[in-house]
Amino acid sequence: MRRIHKSKIKNPKKVVVIGGGTGVFTVLSGLKKYPVELSAVISMADDGGSTGVLREEFGILPPGDLRRAMVALARTDNKLLSDLFNYRFREGGFRGHAFGNIMLTALERLTGSFEDAVEEAGRILNVQGRVIPVTLDNVELRAELEDGAIVKGETNIDIPKHDSSLKIKKVFLKPHASGNPKAISVIREADLIILGPGDLFTSIIPNLLVRGVGRAIREAKGTKVFVVNTMTKLGETTDFTARDFLDAIEKYLGKGVLDFAVINTKKPSPERLKEYAREGKQVVGLGGNFQKKPVAITGDFVRKSGFVRHDPARLAKVLAGLL
Amino acid sequence: MRRIHKSKIKNPKKVVVIGGGTGVFTVLSGLKKYPVELSAVISMADDGGSTGVLREEFGILPPGDLRRAMVALARTDNKLLSDLFNYRFREGGFRGHAFGNIMLTALERLTGSFEDAVEEAGRILNVQGRVIPVTLDNVELRAELEDGAIVKGETNIDIPKHDSSLKIKKVFLKPHASGNPKAISVIREADLIILGPGDLFTSIIPNLLVRGVGRAIREAKGTKVFVVNTMTKLGETTDFTARDFLDAIEKYLGKGVLDFAVINTKKPSPERLKEYAREGKQVVGLGGNFQKKPVAITGDFVRKSGFVRHDPARLAKVLAGLL
Repeated sequence: MRRIHKSKIKNPKKVVVIGGGTGVFTVLSGLKKYPVELSAVISMADDGGSTGVLREEFGILPPGDLRRAMVALARTDNKLLSDLFNYRFREGGFRGHAFGNIMLTALERLTGSFEDAVEEAGRILNVQGRVIPVTLDNVELRAELEDGAIVKGETNIDIPKHDSSLKIKKVFLKPHASGNPKAISVIREADLIILGPGDLFTSIIPNLLVRGVGRAIREAKGTKVFVVNTMTKLGETTDFTARDFLDAIEKYLGKGVLDFAVINTKKPSPERLKEYAREGKQVVGLGGNFQKKPVAITGDFVRKSGFVRHDPARLAKVLAGLL
Repeated sequence: MRRIHKSKIKNPKKVVVIGGGTGVFTVLSGLKKYPVELSAVISMADDGGSTGVLREEFGILPPGDLRRAMVALARTDNKLLSDLFNYRFREGGFRGHAFGNIMLTALERLTGSFEDAVEEAGRILNVQGRVIPVTLDNVELRAELEDGAIVKGETNIDIPKHDSSLKIKKVFLKPHASGNPKAISVIREADLIILGPGDLFTSIIPNLLVRGVGRAIREAKGTKVFVVNTMTKLGETTDFTARDFLDAIEKYLGKGVLDFAVINTKKPSPERLKEYAREGKQVVGLGGNFQKKPVAITGDFVRKSGFVRHDPARLAKVLAGLL
């Protein structure tokens, strides 16, 4: 596909991707080859690894997922700068920290604002698009399990450090968080709103827990699409079907809001699934009928080899087709 | 003074500044307003502070003085990036580290070469000129005092951690270091070679201890000038006059090599010297005749207020006058 210069397109279509983690990276890196105006609204619930240490030591918002989204949108002609942003130290006092996280921390201290830090980092990286924290409030993600137990912190839910046979009843933020006005505005103005793929309760739904975000999506004029994960995750979406994913999303977003659901129906080879099986992860099946809203878009959307994840190009093609 | 765009000048004059620490910053930030092609050859003897920790933990060459020179040569239209490069963390695991040092460390790991790291950082900062490590060998600076005692490490000589009433007999590198071919070549090709100002035994002379550097200066066609410090430094240049500074330099560089010596003869107000007196520092006097080489250029070269240091604009004016 020939790359079209966005600057040459008059009134390009606006696309917003809502999520966190590697799912956003996949969608952005596929869609950035299309002549669209891309924004990413990123969950601020992460508290693990380098990000967790920086939150603890500096009291800043979590930089990790913003960093990944920025790298996805960085101009491909400056690979070293992207590599630098993602570089993770293996020695000394910085061990485990990604360089981009350190840069966002320094910029936050220098500008006095996390939002400005993200904008400046985007400028340095020459990001083609916008990367926006869903909230500027410092919050903790919590989960209530089906036995009533409360799990505190994104990482503890994510890993999981709780009994993985227990289902997550609901997730919530402590304290409440208000939507970042810039996030609300890109959602309202988007022609296409993409949720997922990504960890359902720890990357996708945390965005919907932020005040004003769900309403902005519901009221937005744009087409709404949810990209269902290719694989389940033990303790978070054990045995989930596409139907279960949608039911969970609709519980927070409301029924009849989503227009489309992109669901992979290609079953990878047993060989590729071996490692997943050991971790209690399965291929996500359909699990129900999709007659009305959201309309199911099924097909082969996974990579040809390696991890059973969405292929950026295949996924971008079907998403761009909705514009 | 109107800033002239260097790109519009055909065959601009080549100027190389040799040193380390804040002196280089002063000379570069003054001269960068002139239509000259600037290079800085930086001593690799520093082992204190953030730089010392990074040398210890990562085994890299000292980044601190290179960082300062880069900031001096960074385009003035991107102040935030310069500020970021100089930003020093005050909390957490990065406490005391300058961000630019962390960046040079990450780039070294990523590119596998300290030289490439310096070049890439220069590109990111949009440095107008070249910043070149005098050697790529990892060395330690040592001093022999007049009683025969050996002081190991730049910081221990610099602070000083030895009896400050004892004079430094000589300094040397352990092990020997070979000149960086790029440093040798900019020295040979320069129209003007500037040594100093800066800490004599810990920032200036360490460059002359590197194999090939003294010879390159001696054989170079360019005009050679030494900028004498404005103030003495306890334990390193106690009671030194301009004559003593020159004698020390000539011991390592050879007699009759320097063409000019820039010597400040303006005595600052007693008020401004109070703090210096408490630290055992005095104004550097002439201390002898300057009839032959080097020709003394005397005058008022210090800032109007604050620290008794060279004024970048005044110093640059007299240096540019030698071209």
